[in-house]
Amino acid sequence: MTIFDAKTLANEGVRNLSPYQAGKPIEELERELGIRNIVKLASNENPLGLSAKVKQALQDQLAGLARYPDANGYYLKTCIAEKFNIKANQITLGNGSNDVLELIARTFVSDKNEVIYSQHAFVVYPIVTQAIGAKGIAVPAKDYGHDLDGMLDAINDRTRMIFIANPNNPTGTFLASDALHNFLKSVPANVLVVLDEAYSEYVAEEDRAPSFQWVNEFPNLLVTRTFSKAYGLAGLRAGFAVTGAEIADLLNRVRQPFNMNSLSLRAAEVALGDTGYLEKSVIVNDTGMAQLTLFCDEQGLRYIPSRGNFLTIEVGEDAAGIYQKLLHAGVIVRPVAGYELPRHLRVSIGLPEENQVFIEAMKKILAEQVG
Amino acid sequence: MTIFDAKTLANEGVRNLSPYQAGKPIEELERELGIRNIVKLASNENPLGLSAKVKQALQDQLAGLARYPDANGYYLKTCIAEKFNIKANQITLGNGSNDVLELIARTFVSDKNEVIYSQHAFVVYPIVTQAIGAKGIAVPAKDYGHDLDGMLDAINDRTRMIFIANPNNPTGTFLASDALHNFLKSVPANVLVVLDEAYSEYVAEEDRAPSFQWVNEFPNLLVTRTFSKAYGLAGLRAGFAVTGAEIADLLNRVRQPFNMNSLSLRAAEVALGDTGYLEKSVIVNDTGMAQLTLFCDEQGLRYIPSRGNFLTIEVGEDAAGIYQKLLHAGVIVRPVAGYELPRHLRVSIGLPEENQVFIEAMKKILAEQVG
Repeated sequence: MTIFDAKTLANEGVRNLSPYQAGKPIEELERELGIRNIVKLASNENPLGLSAKVKQALQDQLAGLARYPDANGYYLKTCIAEKFNIKANQITLGNGSNDVLELIARTFVSDKNEVIYSQHAFVVYPIVTQAIGAKGIAVPAKDYGHDLDGMLDAINDRTRMIFIANPNNPTGTFLASDALHNFLKSVPANVLVVLDEAYSEYVAEEDRAPSFQWVNEFPNLLVTRTFSKAYGLAGLRAGFAVTGAEIADLLNRVRQPFNMNSLSLRAAEVALGDTGYLEKSVIVNDTGMAQLTLFCDEQGLRYIPSRGNFLTIEVGEDAAGIYQKLLHAGVIVRPVAGYELPRHLRVSIGLPEENQVFIEAMKKILAEQVG
Repeated sequence: MTIFDAKTLANEGVRNLSPYQAGKPIEELERELGIRNIVKLASNENPLGLSAKVKQALQDQLAGLARYPDANGYYLKTCIAEKFNIKANQITLGNGSNDVLELIARTFVSDKNEVIYSQHAFVVYPIVTQAIGAKGIAVPAKDYGHDLDGMLDAINDRTRMIFIANPNNPTGTFLASDALHNFLKSVPANVLVVLDEAYSEYVAEEDRAPSFQWVNEFPNLLVTRTFSKAYGLAGLRAGFAVTGAEIADLLNRVRQPFNMNSLSLRAAEVALGDTGYLEKSVIVNDTGMAQLTLFCDEQGLRYIPSRGNFLTIEVGEDAAGIYQKLLHAGVIVRPVAGYELPRHLRVSIGLPEENQVFIEAMKKILAEQVG
């Protein structure tokens, strides 16, 4: 008789994946800790909340929800293409950029390949690599950021893909346009480069790489963007890739036809056009970043200079303890020990008053440490 | 110098996938055909539109959308577990059941495996099989439905998974509980059986298999459900799998943490509790099914007796032509030539007045054929 063993039946890469450790809903946490009005500075979300224009558009859309979404994302793709001066057939839509990154890996990477990414880089890169059973190569970081030369050196015959996050999460480090361009020129054409620009909107316009134009120069380049950060749609799941048309065609074969739902399609469309909200988001971020770095400087706390909507602060050996103390003070930040940053905590930039709650809580914790 | 060739870099199964042929948005179609008020009876959606309770709940939820969804779907899983008397750790949530079916395949099937499904069965089974590079075995149907004995005979050492849709889409055929139970007893424990019950709510309660209980009896059984049909949430993407806890743990390792967005999580939770809407949906479906079958009987049109929310009607050799004529009469139905049913059209059950639009258009087309 055959014995059932779920693990043996699972694919090898899947067997060795760590189960995702989900955070509890804020409401649950409040109940457990017996506190209210928790400030969440943990997930690099937009502290402004949903754009008023998007909210109105969603309300108008509710009646049609018993119908399937537009499988092709016709209107959203048209808007993205117009806004960024690219062609609609270069776009692949995703249920957040997590979905796009996974699609890219599943389309091109097999268990015979290697995938290169940086130490301290976004956790989705090793996860999607491992799920496929491919070998992940984490290249040691340089000053907490990508060591592009080191990554070039790591390329071999089995390398199929390189992930670059710019700015990088959770460190906020940023690669200048020239350095990236030189890197792309050095990567062999049969190695795909995925440039994850989830935090791009927070970078000053003059510093941003012309990455969508580069797609024409480098057919092996795939650029990903998200609506979860500056566009304020984390709860709705919307992201996209810009690539050559041939790559987009392949990605769209693997994509689930209804991966973006009706509301996220519509919300992303409206959010793209709401430049006022986007500008305000960047101002709030710049202001909050100044507020947090000033606090760190005053306290003599070291931090990794960040171009994202978060600041990763070196709080020392007891980072886990400080995280817990912040939690009990009603502030959720993100421990980054899993990113090989055991002495740091990542703090998302909130509204000024939210940042202030963090600052006051932190001051108290630091004073107790000294005392 | 290395030449870039996207197709060569893509995984083999992906290269051979057909690009998804997306339908145009209704608004686009109306503009092209110069007609208005198109009746869509093409995608087995709930013609009642969104439940009023769900609509209200979504409106209340809009403000929080800049925050990430609950990665664990804590509240929705709790509701599902309570309603169906199962444990929350048996549940895997999906962005529609398409997502769940794909997750299951990616977790357990590799390019060394075979996957069995029926001729005329749901197209997602061969697609997910092929994307992985596994070999799909389509067992010839019996009276348009699953030939369970034939499927048992197709099992060999390489078989990892069997997909069963009950009721089946696009034929509406239904397997009785006894036959399914005997089948499950005959399948070796190391072959997984995925029982897709997307249309289950339309089946009279006394005829439904106790499939969630069977999961305890057969650890190799995975049952999937959707919120896209009777629950009326097609546009929001929500589905789930019920399995043993060990299988659920593996599936959740591969699942994208935010695969269901904040609104679909909340909508599904409310829809589960809105029994009034569900009952009304079933009544509307039973009434419409009677209306359509009566029409067919009167016209001498053969159809496949259906337990779903659609009727697949044999319209003859010119099915493609009739489909086009219906389109110009403002009725979208679904051609099923891709399902090896070139003489049939699948008609979703709409509201009585929508069904009537189809009936009148069809009468006119049939009269012209004779004339």
